[in-house]
Amino acid sequence: MKNGTTHLFVPGPTNIPDAVRRAMNVPMQDMRAPDYPELTLPLFADLKKVFRTESGVVFIYPGSGTGAWEASISNTLNRGDRVLMSRFGQFSHLWVDMAERLGLVVDCVDVEWGEGVPVEEYQRRLGDDKRGEIKAVFVTQNETATGVTSDVAGVRRALDTTGHDALLFVDGVSSIGSIDFRMDEWGVDIAVTGSQKGLMLPAGLGILAVSEKALEAHKQSRMERCYFSFEDMRASFTTGFFPYTPPTQMLHGLRAALDLMLAEGLDNIIARHHRLAQGIRQGVHAWGLRLCAKEEKWWSNTVSAIVVPESIDARQVIANGYSKYRTSFGAGLSKVAGRVFRIAHLGDLNEVMCLAALASAEMSLRDAGARIEPGCGVAAAQEWYRAEIARDLQSLRECAA
Amino acid sequence: MKNGTTHLFVPGPTNIPDAVRRAMNVPMQDMRAPDYPELTLPLFADLKKVFRTESGVVFIYPGSGTGAWEASISNTLNRGDRVLMSRFGQFSHLWVDMAERLGLVVDCVDVEWGEGVPVEEYQRRLGDDKRGEIKAVFVTQNETATGVTSDVAGVRRALDTTGHDALLFVDGVSSIGSIDFRMDEWGVDIAVTGSQKGLMLPAGLGILAVSEKALEAHKQSRMERCYFSFEDMRASFTTGFFPYTPPTQMLHGLRAALDLMLAEGLDNIIARHHRLAQGIRQGVHAWGLRLCAKEEKWWSNTVSAIVVPESIDARQVIANGYSKYRTSFGAGLSKVAGRVFRIAHLGDLNEVMCLAALASAEMSLRDAGARIEPGCGVAAAQEWYRAEIARDLQSLRECAA
Amino acid sequence: MKNGTTHLFVPGPTNIPDAVRRAMNVPMQDMRAPDYPELTLPLFADLKKVFRTESGVVFIYPGSGTGAWEASISNTLNRGDRVLMSRFGQFSHLWVDMAERLGLVVDCVDVEWGEGVPVEEYQRRLGDDKRGEIKAVFVTQNETATGVTSDVAGVRRALDTTGHDALLFVDGVSSIGSIDFRMDEWGVDIAVTGSQKGLMLPAGLGILAVSEKALEAHKQSRMERCYFSFEDMRASFTTGFFPYTPPTQMLHGLRAALDLMLAEGLDNIIARHHRLAQGIRQGVHAWGLRLCAKEEKWWSNTVSAIVVPESIDARQVIANGYSKYRTSFGAGLSKVAGRVFRIAHLGDLNEVMCLAALASAEMSLRDAGARIEPGCGVAAAQEWYRAEIARDLQSLRECAA
Amino acid sequence: MKNGTTHLFVPGPTNIPDAVRRAMNVPMQDMRAPDYPELTLPLFADLKKVFRTESGVVFIYPGSGTGAWEASISNTLNRGDRVLMSRFGQFSHLWVDMAERLGLVVDCVDVEWGEGVPVEEYQRRLGDDKRGEIKAVFVTQNETATGVTSDVAGVRRALDTTGHDALLFVDGVSSIGSIDFRMDEWGVDIAVTGSQKGLMLPAGLGILAVSEKALEAHKQSRMERCYFSFEDMRASFTTGFFPYTPPTQMLHGLRAALDLMLAEGLDNIIARHHRLAQGIRQGVHAWGLRLCAKEEKWWSNTVSAIVVPESIDARQVIANGYSKYRTSFGAGLSKVAGRVFRIAHLGDLNEVMCLAALASAEMSLRDAGARIEPGCGVAAAQEWYRAEIARDLQSLRECAA
Repeated sequence: MKNGTTHLFVPGPTNIPDAVRRAMNVPMQDMRAPDYPELTLPLFADLKKVFRTESGVVFIYPGSGTGAWEASISNTLNRGDRVLMSRFGQFSHLWVDMAERLGLVVDCVDVEWGEGVPVEEYQRRLGDDKRGEIKAVFVTQNETATGVTSDVAGVRRALDTTGHDALLFVDGVSSIGSIDFRMDEWGVDIAVTGSQKGLMLPAGLGILAVSEKALEAHKQSRMERCYFSFEDMRASFTTGFFPYTPPTQMLHGLRAALDLMLAEGLDNIIARHHRLAQGIRQGVHAWGLRLCAKEEKWWSNTVSAIVVPESIDARQVIANGYSKYRTSFGAGLSKVAGRVFRIAHLGDLNEVMCLAALASAEMSLRDAGARIEPGCGVAAAQEWYRAEIARDLQSLRECAA
Repeated sequence: MKNGTTHLFVPGPTNIPDAVRRAMNVPMQDMRAPDYPELTLPLFADLKKVFRTESGVVFIYPGSGTGAWEASISNTLNRGDRVLMSRFGQFSHLWVDMAERLGLVVDCVDVEWGEGVPVEEYQRRLGDDKRGEIKAVFVTQNETATGVTSDVAGVRRALDTTGHDALLFVDGVSSIGSIDFRMDEWGVDIAVTGSQKGLMLPAGLGILAVSEKALEAHKQSRMERCYFSFEDMRASFTTGFFPYTPPTQMLHGLRAALDLMLAEGLDNIIARHHRLAQGIRQGVHAWGLRLCAKEEKWWSNTVSAIVVPESIDARQVIANGYSKYRTSFGAGLSKVAGRVFRIAHLGDLNEVMCLAALASAEMSLRDAGARIEPGCGVAAAQEWYRAEIARDLQSLRECAA
Repeated sequence: MKNGTTHLFVPGPTNIPDAVRRAMNVPMQDMRAPDYPELTLPLFADLKKVFRTESGVVFIYPGSGTGAWEASISNTLNRGDRVLMSRFGQFSHLWVDMAERLGLVVDCVDVEWGEGVPVEEYQRRLGDDKRGEIKAVFVTQNETATGVTSDVAGVRRALDTTGHDALLFVDGVSSIGSIDFRMDEWGVDIAVTGSQKGLMLPAGLGILAVSEKALEAHKQSRMERCYFSFEDMRASFTTGFFPYTPPTQMLHGLRAALDLMLAEGLDNIIARHHRLAQGIRQGVHAWGLRLCAKEEKWWSNTVSAIVVPESIDARQVIANGYSKYRTSFGAGLSKVAGRVFRIAHLGDLNEVMCLAALASAEMSLRDAGARIEPGCGVAAAQEWYRAEIARDLQSLRECAA
Repeated sequence: MKNGTTHLFVPGPTNIPDAVRRAMNVPMQDMRAPDYPELTLPLFADLKKVFRTESGVVFIYPGSGTGAWEASISNTLNRGDRVLMSRFGQFSHLWVDMAERLGLVVDCVDVEWGEGVPVEEYQRRLGDDKRGEIKAVFVTQNETATGVTSDVAGVRRALDTTGHDALLFVDGVSSIGSIDFRMDEWGVDIAVTGSQKGLMLPAGLGILAVSEKALEAHKQSRMERCYFSFEDMRASFTTGFFPYTPPTQMLHGLRAALDLMLAEGLDNIIARHHRLAQGIRQGVHAWGLRLCAKEEKWWSNTVSAIVVPESIDARQVIANGYSKYRTSFGAGLSKVAGRVFRIAHLGDLNEVMCLAALASAEMSLRDAGARIEPGCGVAAAQEWYRAEIARDLQSLRECAA
């Protein structure tokens, strides 16, 4: 059972491209050498392209996306600040929890799991906040637990419409680099991501992009912080040196990953994620199952949370995949434990890998008792992929002609 | 089109396990150091287990399987020697060609491609050879071009029945370590293999196992040879040192590959290859297509050569797989070019990888115009794999109870 | 100038053994898979051996040693708590700075750079603190900036002598796993280390060992924290699962590094570091130079800070090493910038590597104008190493006899 | 004793640059894929630059330099052909031995070990060969066993002076890519090399460059051959496909190695080898020892064979290096066993690595009883390297000014 490739379809860490693995396999080097910034400075510059920001500043922390969440809060807000958040899955829940533990007063809008950020409710509350008590609005762009993508641009419009000047924080851990995200255009003040999703690296880096407005807010922030403080880390962005030892091998991997991403083109990456996701969804619908994401507008292009039939335990599906078919699916977390399993489809992925995911899921579902016709999900996705790839090649031919 | 894993289903080089890739990534070392044999001697010992020989001697040449073919001939025969061979595919053809170029007189039995070694005809000819002019009988155990496995034990019986004492040479390049092979039990005198098939390494090593009888014949052999000569290389088997610089990184990889193989167990490996192959064949039959191998007794458990419908060009199927679906299938060679494409299923492989092969082949076939129901091959294989794995788990449970 | 190996003698990241680099080169895997703890749980168990604790609990954070410093404070103390610290180099300085920024009231004893923790002064102050206002005593066991090792056991005795029950915090980032450290025997409450020094990994992990007493104090701690909070991370120690995505590749590397360390034996590692360091020091003395560490009792076995002659700028020595001889030495930091350069000698290192360091330093010093006889430092170290190795072999022979 | 880097100073395999090791760590790929030649064709083109030939054709064999020796003979000559060779070390001896075993009639000039090809004697014999019976003249450009470099251009002049049209064969295994070699300018007909020396790869490839004249001779060659035959392999040079499975990972490594070499520039590489070798020789002379190479004109820039004092056994020196100091030196072979040990200085190497070699050799010699002043060889080499590097930097500055 241990032969061959492990089929990894969890939403992070994602599959690492071979070129990235190779790039990380380096001997150590002096992080204070005069030419060290030749490695680091271009990383900051290229990450800005991924965040689609020109005016923002990028921070790279040894840590994780969770650490970057903390950095976003502890550097720009103060204990007792009121913030507007919403909760509709495990990761939006955890960010709320963090905000409260760090001393913020959270106006939390609870939304049914399967939906996303309630833009209208946000707009109503912002409109009601005549005294400007809300210091920041938080958006989980892609709720990894339920496969729901929220409307960041909509939240920006809500802020603009109400003339509210709260900061706009976005958790883009499982979206940035895979799903459309536009920091400058959408007026995002802090965008948070990590290395182990769309950036196709192992876990180990928490990454922030910070607007000038957020840097201004930072000057008023009095929360205790040290490891994650902007003060210490900010120089890294301009000098290329870090205040404490950076994981150099990860930076080499980031270089390779950014090279791959820039070569493919961010728009192409986003289009590819849509295509691959759509194939997975075709498969799910062919099975007669539905996504946790309630409406098409919420469908995530990086992860699909699939609701299993009533009589089935999703945990059994996942256990079957892992123990019988060398396949790792994502579990249903918290409220949806046992009710959903997740197929992640982000990062270094192609069509046949997605078909393998569906084929493995079909067996895992059938073994768990689901009445699904063998091969039907694969077939639906195959036809979608064939048509899409044919269309692409046709476009290429027409361009060339 | 360059994202994600390449799906590699060519019959060599096969997919390399991660542990083997890691093991090969070594700094160089002194091949005359006193502890170098600690690396090499156990390799010879463990390769004997793979060949299933106790009395044989193993030779490891920097080179390829083709080089090992040459070593087998040039070390044991003489120019003008008569040998009995058969030809039923590109690789049996090439061995005949080599034998002739090296100066042997080849009694070549041409057999229709899709069949294997003609045991009865061999027996007839051996019986007719009253003067013992036939010095060696050659068997291509697994003809990689057509996916045909021949009956080595049958040829041994033919020799025994006729009381003929010719040497028995076996090309086991695409069978040894994957398909049942028993050097001692079947009285094989020289068995040839390479590193890039069942041994799950890159190409770069040609490997021979040689019986005492063949070593005896060696003493009478007067062919010019140097690089491949047993004289120079033989000491390596006992001292652990090589007459010229060995590819040390390959030897470390071989160590890791043998460790994996011994841990899985040769019988289990053979059973797994049968299971995986059977799933592929279920898929082929569900498509309504047939194998190049004409009868079930010839079916190879390491590679399936699939005959495409009359109206289709197999080259187009392969081109579709490669350019659209990042999948490498084997081409039809020589006589069967354009008529067959091949799915290799040997080495480091599991069920879901085989389903990916079938899913990709279905798309590639349909794109080439074949009328195949999407998903039908996948479905057939899924059901086979599910049943087999369930049965295995049941056995395990019963053993434990 | 870019050929061959870079000679890396900075005090972190240290040279990574090939086996560790190989072990980190893994495909990603599901960090919630049922067998994931088979990787992680033994890591915690074996790290306890490195810390020499049986009752302590180990925490592994994605981050750095600086992060682990912060974790130690924010989890066990409260804003306004009084702590006793001393400052005699850049890293002890930074820990003081952090403590203040996190809201502690620091009784800071400033000591001349080149000396270590002032045990007698600590004892005096603890004795004076009749009301037990000092909640914790901090010790930088090895001040990396000056190459000074302090007397942790002495501080424990000071606490015991005065009957003071403050917590004892030790920064062992550049000592643990290289220089004698005994958590349980010395009654250390929190020991901090990182991955990129004696553990021979890249940077990326901050590691803590925490005593039961410190865990008790944790219950009273009300500092805001989330990423580094013991609450979230503590379960990892017992379940093997992490609250956020761990850098799995680092954990595989840690496995390999611990395997190497346990095979060598902690006492042997400590003895080796002493031997290697002593050779470096022989070389320094042969040059007629002195260490920044003022007395032999402060000499560090992991890093030597070498005071250059008055007329020389140590920065030039370092620049020469880097630009001419592909050698990375550590810089003098802050107060000793320009006055010292550092040769780190910890981790995966052997005698000839140390001789290379000395040879390269001699050239770099001479190029900077120092009047040092070529080869004299190398010669002194050679004779020391020869004698030591001969003595070892003699012991081995006697044991065998 | 197993900590840190192994110090590898054997003349092959040489140290592999990290970039090359990384490049070889690839998943396998289809060697018949339409884009495979994108990898292979530029390798042939760039190897021509290394051989300094425009009209020659390059062959890459899975094998070793020994295999390439065989390919050179069996493809262009006939049994019974008379050839002119000379013997002055283990490798020139082995080539003579091979020529005889392959059926050539060898006119062998035996020369004292420590000297090289006897150009005048060659010229005399060629002049005497009025009937043109000598079909080929062989030159071992760099005799690895004795560290002797011969005068290939001189042999060409001897051929030209005598108007002899024999083919000129050169064994450049330990010289090409490190020591000046000019195929076209010197009218070399076949140049032989391997992957594991100046090309900085592991062993595994035998490489030939073949002139048009040699290809013409090939048409008349009737020696039996198959694996090494030009016929089968020649197409690879134009199509990029190989007649049997090539070691793809080695080809990726070759790509990386050639990239490094072309970036450094062949002239710079040759100059660097001279500089490094000269430092080693300064060290040897400072010890009061002499090279096996009798005169300066024979001194090899890739390997120094050092004659130990009468009372010393060179085997003990080598054993000391290996067992005590993790250093691999080359042994004295055959006639000079016990009398010389060798320091190889080719491939991916820098000054400090050479100093490490000398430092380690000094200890190993002293442990074996040699009366050598500690550090004296290191000191001599240091001063040479310092001066050379200073001169380089000065030139660079002047260029920039």
